[in-house]
Amino acid sequence: MNLMEKRELLYEGKAKKVFATDDGKLVIQEFKDSLTAFNAQKKGSFEGKGAVNLKITSIIFKYLASQGIKTHFVKSLNEKEFLVQKLQMVPLEVVVRNVVAGSLAARFGVAEGLVLEDALVEFYYKKDELNDPMITDDQVVALKFASLDDLKNLKSQARKVNQALKVFFDGIGVTLVDFKLEFGKNETGDIVLADEISPDSCRLWDKKTGEKLDKDRFRKDLGRVQESYELLLDRIIKKWGQS
Amino acid sequence: MNLMEKRELLYEGKAKKVFATDDGKLVIQEFKDSLTAFNAQKKGSFEGKGAVNLKITSIIFKYLASQGIKTHFVKSLNEKEFLVQKLQMVPLEVVVRNVVAGSLAARFGVAEGLVLEDALVEFYYKKDELNDPMITDDQVVALKFASLDDLKNLKSQARKVNQALKVFFDGIGVTLVDFKLEFGKNETGDIVLADEISPDSCRLWDKKTGEKLDKDRFRKDLGRVQESYELLLDRIIKKWGQS
Repeated sequence: MNLMEKRELLYEGKAKKVFATDDGKLVIQEFKDSLTAFNAQKKGSFEGKGAVNLKITSIIFKYLASQGIKTHFVKSLNEKEFLVQKLQMVPLEVVVRNVVAGSLAARFGVAEGLVLEDALVEFYYKKDELNDPMITDDQVVALKFASLDDLKNLKSQARKVNQALKVFFDGIGVTLVDFKLEFGKNETGDIVLADEISPDSCRLWDKKTGEKLDKDRFRKDLGRVQESYELLLDRIIKKWGQS
Repeated sequence: MNLMEKRELLYEGKAKKVFATDDGKLVIQEFKDSLTAFNAQKKGSFEGKGAVNLKITSIIFKYLASQGIKTHFVKSLNEKEFLVQKLQMVPLEVVVRNVVAGSLAARFGVAEGLVLEDALVEFYYKKDELNDPMITDDQVVALKFASLDDLKNLKSQARKVNQALKVFFDGIGVTLVDFKLEFGKNETGDIVLADEISPDSCRLWDKKTGEKLDKDRFRKDLGRVQESYELLLDRIIKKWGQS
């Protein structure tokens, strides 16, 4: 019996599909070629985007594991699918910011590019039909979306990931502006990093030119979307190797 | 020299004006008859609204002072104006919720009327042109809108006000669902309660009938707006006296 075979579709998101396997503890995560922005009001894609994001995510997840950070990644199966641990997902997106950009700049009228003294961690309630609204720590606890202990744990893990990723991207001449993480709980109740880390989920600015090497090229119609994703992967492989 | 004379207009908000006096430490707060909702996209008014809100606010501020809570209130000057301490305002609206309603229900798809186990305190960044966006504690500190100490102080004062107001409204058969506070700092740096506490800034539900006795009557076109404001004032005076 081939445990790696895809069984029923468990979940389909904007850029990913998750399939069951015959092993109840493992699922297959497929990276789609689609690109979406502004809660899927803007749609696009390019051939090979899923493969680039899978490759970047798998290199980063292996790097994070080497830094003592638990992730759901088990192994790559092919260009667009990898095998991951099945988790009970926490219904929060965790955003870490080192530099002001995007929704933070717009929401509070603050200049994009302002460097924050300490990394800022934000939570968003995962609910497409509500546009994933920002949520405060006190609201998370009051509405019982997560416990106070889980929140503290998420924040501390997000900060650890940030420390490691800053070194990772620094090594390829890129500023890690901000990024989004998702976590889940494994069978023993440990909080484990899941989802992906890719130009879809990070803001990455070239340190020399300031050029954006992430999904903002698509969001803002800056052109050379595919080229930038591929350039990023090339730089990562050159510095950090295939894995 | 009459210190109570109005000098230049220092600030005009949606329902209030603030004037300088000849005493640099005191300002005059005028209650307007206008009613606004949805960030002033909906406008209305009724004759005497300012007077009703001034009366309710002054009774409540005296009650809070008797409970050891510092407010900016000095004394009433006439039906629509009272004298207050001049403060350096904190650029945050502080919302306290005992029951889910309004924006909290809409934002997270939670049923209106759900009673929260503990009071929930929220902050909103005061900036009309940005629609007073909700802000997390970590964002307040990262963007330096207030210090962490100030935030803790605001939360603890807001909770004290909530404890006192729950008793106050309980005494007239009304559930205190939620309310908005504003604070400022006095010359010695103490945080002092300012602004107003009225049916404009609270959600108040009759305990027997469930009827709304607050600005939601205007927001939701429920009718009898003026009657409800006046009924509330009558009940307050009957129970708590003119001051």
